[in-house]
Amino acid sequence: MTVMPSLRDPVDAQTPRSRAALVERYREVRRFTETLCAPLETEDYVVQPMPDASPAKWHLAHSSWFFETFVLKPHAPRYHEIDPAYAYLFNSYYVQAGARHCRDQRGMVTRPTVSQTYAYRAHVDQQVEDLLVGADEPLLEALAPLVTLGTHHEQQHQELLITDVKYLFSRNPLRPAYDARAAPEPPSKAPSLKWASFPGGLREVGHSGSGFCFDNETPRHPEYVEPFRLASRPVTNGEYLEFIGDGGYDRADLWVSDGWAEASRQEWRAPLYWEREGRTWQLFTTDGMQRLDPEEPVCHVSYYEADAYARWRGARLASETEWEVAAEKCALEGHFVESHRCHPRPAGGRGALLQLYGDIWEWTRSPYAPYPGFQPLPGALGEYNGKFMCNQFVLRGGSCATSITHIRPTYRNFFHPHCRWQFSGMRLAADGG
Amino acid sequence: MTVMPSLRDPVDAQTPRSRAALVERYREVRRFTETLCAPLETEDYVVQPMPDASPAKWHLAHSSWFFETFVLKPHAPRYHEIDPAYAYLFNSYYVQAGARHCRDQRGMVTRPTVSQTYAYRAHVDQQVEDLLVGADEPLLEALAPLVTLGTHHEQQHQELLITDVKYLFSRNPLRPAYDARAAPEPPSKAPSLKWASFPGGLREVGHSGSGFCFDNETPRHPEYVEPFRLASRPVTNGEYLEFIGDGGYDRADLWVSDGWAEASRQEWRAPLYWEREGRTWQLFTTDGMQRLDPEEPVCHVSYYEADAYARWRGARLASETEWEVAAEKCALEGHFVESHRCHPRPAGGRGALLQLYGDIWEWTRSPYAPYPGFQPLPGALGEYNGKFMCNQFVLRGGSCATSITHIRPTYRNFFHPHCRWQFSGMRLAADGG
Amino acid sequence: MTVMPSLRDPVDAQTPRSRAALVERYREVRRFTETLCAPLETEDYVVQPMPDASPAKWHLAHSSWFFETFVLKPHAPRYHEIDPAYAYLFNSYYVQAGARHCRDQRGMVTRPTVSQTYAYRAHVDQQVEDLLVGADEPLLEALAPLVTLGTHHEQQHQELLITDVKYLFSRNPLRPAYDARAAPEPPSKAPSLKWASFPGGLREVGHSGSGFCFDNETPRHPEYVEPFRLASRPVTNGEYLEFIGDGGYDRADLWVSDGWAEASRQEWRAPLYWEREGRTWQLFTTDGMQRLDPEEPVCHVSYYEADAYARWRGARLASETEWEVAAEKCALEGHFVESHRCHPRPAGGRGALLQLYGDIWEWTRSPYAPYPGFQPLPGALGEYNGKFMCNQFVLRGGSCATSITHIRPTYRNFFHPHCRWQFSGMRLAADGG
Amino acid sequence: MTVMPSLRDPVDAQTPRSRAALVERYREVRRFTETLCAPLETEDYVVQPMPDASPAKWHLAHSSWFFETFVLKPHAPRYHEIDPAYAYLFNSYYVQAGARHCRDQRGMVTRPTVSQTYAYRAHVDQQVEDLLVGADEPLLEALAPLVTLGTHHEQQHQELLITDVKYLFSRNPLRPAYDARAAPEPPSKAPSLKWASFPGGLREVGHSGSGFCFDNETPRHPEYVEPFRLASRPVTNGEYLEFIGDGGYDRADLWVSDGWAEASRQEWRAPLYWEREGRTWQLFTTDGMQRLDPEEPVCHVSYYEADAYARWRGARLASETEWEVAAEKCALEGHFVESHRCHPRPAGGRGALLQLYGDIWEWTRSPYAPYPGFQPLPGALGEYNGKFMCNQFVLRGGSCATSITHIRPTYRNFFHPHCRWQFSGMRLAADGG
Repeated sequence: MTVMPSLRDPVDAQTPRSRAALVERYREVRRFTETLCAPLETEDYVVQPMPDASPAKWHLAHSSWFFETFVLKPHAPRYHEIDPAYAYLFNSYYVQAGARHCRDQRGMVTRPTVSQTYAYRAHVDQQVEDLLVGADEPLLEALAPLVTLGTHHEQQHQELLITDVKYLFSRNPLRPAYDARAAPEPPSKAPSLKWASFPGGLREVGHSGSGFCFDNETPRHPEYVEPFRLASRPVTNGEYLEFIGDGGYDRADLWVSDGWAEASRQEWRAPLYWEREGRTWQLFTTDGMQRLDPEEPVCHVSYYEADAYARWRGARLASETEWEVAAEKCALEGHFVESHRCHPRPAGGRGALLQLYGDIWEWTRSPYAPYPGFQPLPGALGEYNGKFMCNQFVLRGGSCATSITHIRPTYRNFFHPHCRWQFSGMRLAADGG
Repeated sequence: MTVMPSLRDPVDAQTPRSRAALVERYREVRRFTETLCAPLETEDYVVQPMPDASPAKWHLAHSSWFFETFVLKPHAPRYHEIDPAYAYLFNSYYVQAGARHCRDQRGMVTRPTVSQTYAYRAHVDQQVEDLLVGADEPLLEALAPLVTLGTHHEQQHQELLITDVKYLFSRNPLRPAYDARAAPEPPSKAPSLKWASFPGGLREVGHSGSGFCFDNETPRHPEYVEPFRLASRPVTNGEYLEFIGDGGYDRADLWVSDGWAEASRQEWRAPLYWEREGRTWQLFTTDGMQRLDPEEPVCHVSYYEADAYARWRGARLASETEWEVAAEKCALEGHFVESHRCHPRPAGGRGALLQLYGDIWEWTRSPYAPYPGFQPLPGALGEYNGKFMCNQFVLRGGSCATSITHIRPTYRNFFHPHCRWQFSGMRLAADGG
Repeated sequence: MTVMPSLRDPVDAQTPRSRAALVERYREVRRFTETLCAPLETEDYVVQPMPDASPAKWHLAHSSWFFETFVLKPHAPRYHEIDPAYAYLFNSYYVQAGARHCRDQRGMVTRPTVSQTYAYRAHVDQQVEDLLVGADEPLLEALAPLVTLGTHHEQQHQELLITDVKYLFSRNPLRPAYDARAAPEPPSKAPSLKWASFPGGLREVGHSGSGFCFDNETPRHPEYVEPFRLASRPVTNGEYLEFIGDGGYDRADLWVSDGWAEASRQEWRAPLYWEREGRTWQLFTTDGMQRLDPEEPVCHVSYYEADAYARWRGARLASETEWEVAAEKCALEGHFVESHRCHPRPAGGRGALLQLYGDIWEWTRSPYAPYPGFQPLPGALGEYNGKFMCNQFVLRGGSCATSITHIRPTYRNFFHPHCRWQFSGMRLAADGG
Repeated sequence: MTVMPSLRDPVDAQTPRSRAALVERYREVRRFTETLCAPLETEDYVVQPMPDASPAKWHLAHSSWFFETFVLKPHAPRYHEIDPAYAYLFNSYYVQAGARHCRDQRGMVTRPTVSQTYAYRAHVDQQVEDLLVGADEPLLEALAPLVTLGTHHEQQHQELLITDVKYLFSRNPLRPAYDARAAPEPPSKAPSLKWASFPGGLREVGHSGSGFCFDNETPRHPEYVEPFRLASRPVTNGEYLEFIGDGGYDRADLWVSDGWAEASRQEWRAPLYWEREGRTWQLFTTDGMQRLDPEEPVCHVSYYEADAYARWRGARLASETEWEVAAEKCALEGHFVESHRCHPRPAGGRGALLQLYGDIWEWTRSPYAPYPGFQPLPGALGEYNGKFMCNQFVLRGGSCATSITHIRPTYRNFFHPHCRWQFSGMRLAADGG
């Protein structure tokens, strides 16, 4: 992984403390979104390949809308909109921020065009930077958390932009590559799986301190954990092939009831993007079709598949508390989006727990629920997280499409259990220390 | 509530200790299923009004299949089936117990007829009773937990039978009454809502001891709870009307995202079975159409509605841990199916917490998940609970359609959050002692 | 075929001319409906196995509703309804006759019970017969066409009752037999296929004269036909097996576009009710599962399959005009419902055109459309036929489930092209005399 | 209407007789497709707004594929493909021409890009022109009908391109205009409706002679028609508003059964593209939102609406035979796509029958069916028309989006009866001369 040179400490970068750092952070994150779009043709920006996956153009516009709505309109008195309709078109789900365009209709909006959308971004950027540079101290203090939140919001959409474009390209019979700029990596082998033990007891989880976090990571609070073990690395493609070979997709007893129903309805026989060719497996990646590497972590599996695999192995998924307890002392290092190679690599390095961060998000067994005493942010920003605390499962650790300046030990990602288009994999856990 | 005279201690009845008590328990539960069917016409037994609601005939047969499969076939060497096809037709979801008929096709099976189904029941009953009476001690010891489990399984289907018939009758424009045998109750008023406070700390929840419980109630384990408060009684129809009147069904900000989507799709404007007639509300009940009584607990709401109501009140639902902690010291009394009036009544009585048991199931905010260290039963019986631990929410306390000999403080019921055809209501909770 | 002894001339029976004949016709048809129900258990009357197939109970009630609505209410001044709700429950689609219960909800109505439904029939029968017996001549003249129409309406529902029960039973894994009363027939061979030639020219088709017909058979009018040929008998199962064996279900070029889409969606690989067992085919019949007889006419095919088969053979289906021109001089004989064996038989007998009537309905290539100058009946009865003249295809000739006193050369039956649960087969046609 | 200056006789242009005319025709039609795309942004080319409506890019490519597949590959020995995958991607439904990409997935294909698609067109154009210029006489004779067919095929896709882009733009809340280049027309009034009478008798319809036609227009054959009347002009918006005002969308008795079901399911309250604003109606057009002009022909109605309107007026739609008989002597003039204003105008001019051609397609009551003796073209081209002869209705006369060099008296267009996105309207007919 190539850490961006300007970032000595990724965790510091998450919460800029000075005006200069704030402006720098803003610019860097905004610019990076556009860097990620560099490989796209105009046509690629427009299409919504499924309701869950938005057009790249929409991500570009919506992340700008966020700054416009929560930073500029309340705080820049002379701010003028480029087009008032954008407030409607590019709102995602913030009910209190006004009416919004249906989520599954985003692909219908061929106008504004891509270049108009970039003009919208430039307009917002200019205004935000002017506002930050000219703000007096009290205003700056009010703006800093909003702008910081906006950069983290944008980083979430950077990851979605990649996964959505990948999904779009997978639907094209030509199987285009998103980005083949990164030099190929030499092959490597994942180390054999070991178990790390953790004692039980009352532990604290959740975010505290002055660094940035989302509301859903608070409050820090005690949880009682029983002794447990965690696998030293994520499950690999090779291991997952054994599950397939053992009839894992044909054995209802391995699956929770809803998972079996979904797998039957969708006729799942392997993770998303796997394609069988005769006796070998090919994988659709952001570099196009590749031969399946058994040493890489398995990726693009649903919660249902992760859970069924774990049951088949006589193990289980970790709870998010267990994961966080285990992760507390691990260095925040791994393979992130900054490397410009959006594909997980075989585990490597040293330590009891490899690849906790980066490469693949790890499904936990924890339904996404509010922490005890959770209070959403006031107003429309309160809709950021709380309203999704139902029917979803928590994932931890970030992926190869996550920014290193975006992830934390306490970070809670969440998706419905049937979702597979994120870089989602799994790590095994077990009872007993 | 009229406790059945033979039951001095309902909790004792749950786990019969002697051969005589076991036979008595078996007979009583099996007979009660048929008592519940007494008001039905042959035609009413057959129809499946939605995939979630099975025909009464299927409940009669499936509960017999359970004893046939788990008691008779393994333990009664000379047992002969009435029809080998029944094993296929009346298996519900026990994959390891063999192939099974599609759940949503149960209404297609007009043969075996109702009287053939009763004959099947009688056949199984005779064989089970013979087996119990003639068993030597080791066999009896092996049979007791299976038969006891079977009676609890049957009691679950008794409740489903009532809710399924109620739903079926609601789909008939004639709105037939299931049972109008119970004498009308004099009107009464629910006491005003108060709050009971509970301190935080490490508490134990889950079942222990030798009494009967389902596997999902184990193991007993510590949970850390923050100080909390519980409402003294469930939310009433009158209170819920205020939510409706305040536009509760029109305000997306009160709902979790999936709940809002479901409410929009289904065009919910009130709980299930409510029908507006001009300016008044009518309620479909097992006694037919009734005028809505504002003093009764609100019932037939989804988790989504319960959660939205609580948010609107500035409160929340209880976690299942909080509920169990609070319930530990409350007497197991309330209004149950034995009263033959399957409709919740206005709260009454004395104490800090009214109607914890009976009348309505209380939605909790807890996703249905395994307890730490949970081990399903071995074999096909292990499919009883574990495979549903995904996408569902826990309800506690039993309802007016539950048997008093079936409910416990540790009892965990569970349904998908959109389900409304059970007798499901809610009790408010809040943070802080 | 066993003609009912009382019916010297089936065409005469269609239009009773005297009071006595009218009463006799009424009684006979009404009684025959109940005869057809004799093999049913109470449970079998209730279920609606798909939206197109109504419960037997509904057929019993709706055919009574027809007499109640169009005969008794307008003409019997002192007529009193058994239950006013029946007018709503048992209306099928006659908008002008008042509100009606949703067609796909007929299976929800377990009450009124079967015996109440028979009581409703008896009530209507008594009143109709009293009315007919006591009517003065002008009233009798007004009643005769309505009662006659009602008997033909009832005969249509007799056929639907059989096909709907057959479909219901096919959905039961036990595959019950509807009726095994008829003695088995000795095997016989279908004669080899020949072609009958017909010259072109201006011909008249449609009904004229004083006998009964439906409005859709009028007016008699000229049509120009080109010279054509008709196959001497319907396509047999054996011939259809060749189509299957030649990949008929895998070759898109044989199918019209909508048919190919439907066949793919439904995964059709054979006619309805065919089940492959190893290398042989079994057939579900009203007598239960039978071995497929290659000599019988193929049955339970959609228009799409009939059309694809014909194209595969280098032939086509007949137009309804061609069929009627050819049928004009053929005797109305064949194998009808009066034989109590609702299953087509191998063609037999002598003549250029065998099995034109009875055994199977023959799909024509003619979309169901109004004849030039067509006028629907006035009032609600005008909804009998005209509103269905869109997206359906005409079938001709009656089937083994049709009454001989119901069919005519000019009779136009019609179904959507995807429907397969009727006794529908086909006869080949070709251009050129 | 502005006829293109180069076209003295539009019917002659349909069937070029000399090499020069053929090349000229080819160039003109191909160039015109690109002219129609001039107002589009790159983004607009890509999206498929519903399964029935293809992306503009697909139309550009598919019409080139047609020439590649049926002209170049069989006849240009040294032809090389730009990309072999295009044969798969841009085949529409010609099964015999090889495998094809799913019709409803056309919007997923962002690559090839728009400019690559234009390069594909240029490549094909160069090759076709070279082939035509260099062909010896026998080859030219073989090519002429194929190239001519290809130009007519392309003209069909020109019209679809317009209707598909219009539909796409209607789904964008910004309601972009496709083309606002045409100068606004002065308002005008439609003349009052009169009736033209036609005698009955045996008439000939269908195409004959040496001019171009599609296979579905042949063979010319006799049809017997009864005396009939045709309205002098199409139904206007103002007249249709009376139908709406009289509850036309609420009266089931006016609709055929399938139409009522569709209108209920889709919640139709007006033609497609009508939007009520307070008490006035707005219309989405290719020029953007416009105020509804009551004098214009009603447009974007389904067959169901056309048929219901006619029934409400006590009239009916014409059969296609009647339309063709009436049209035979009318001049082929009207308002076509060459005017660059894709919107119907109020009827004008003189004569007994106004606007028979152009402005709006007229729904007929005739199901789309083969003419007697119809023979599809051999090979893959035989799939052009025949496979759609089921469940569709014939429209006649062309529209404001049709080319004047594409329409003929015998031209049969066809769509499913629920389709509304074409420029489809109606003319009333009645029985009796």
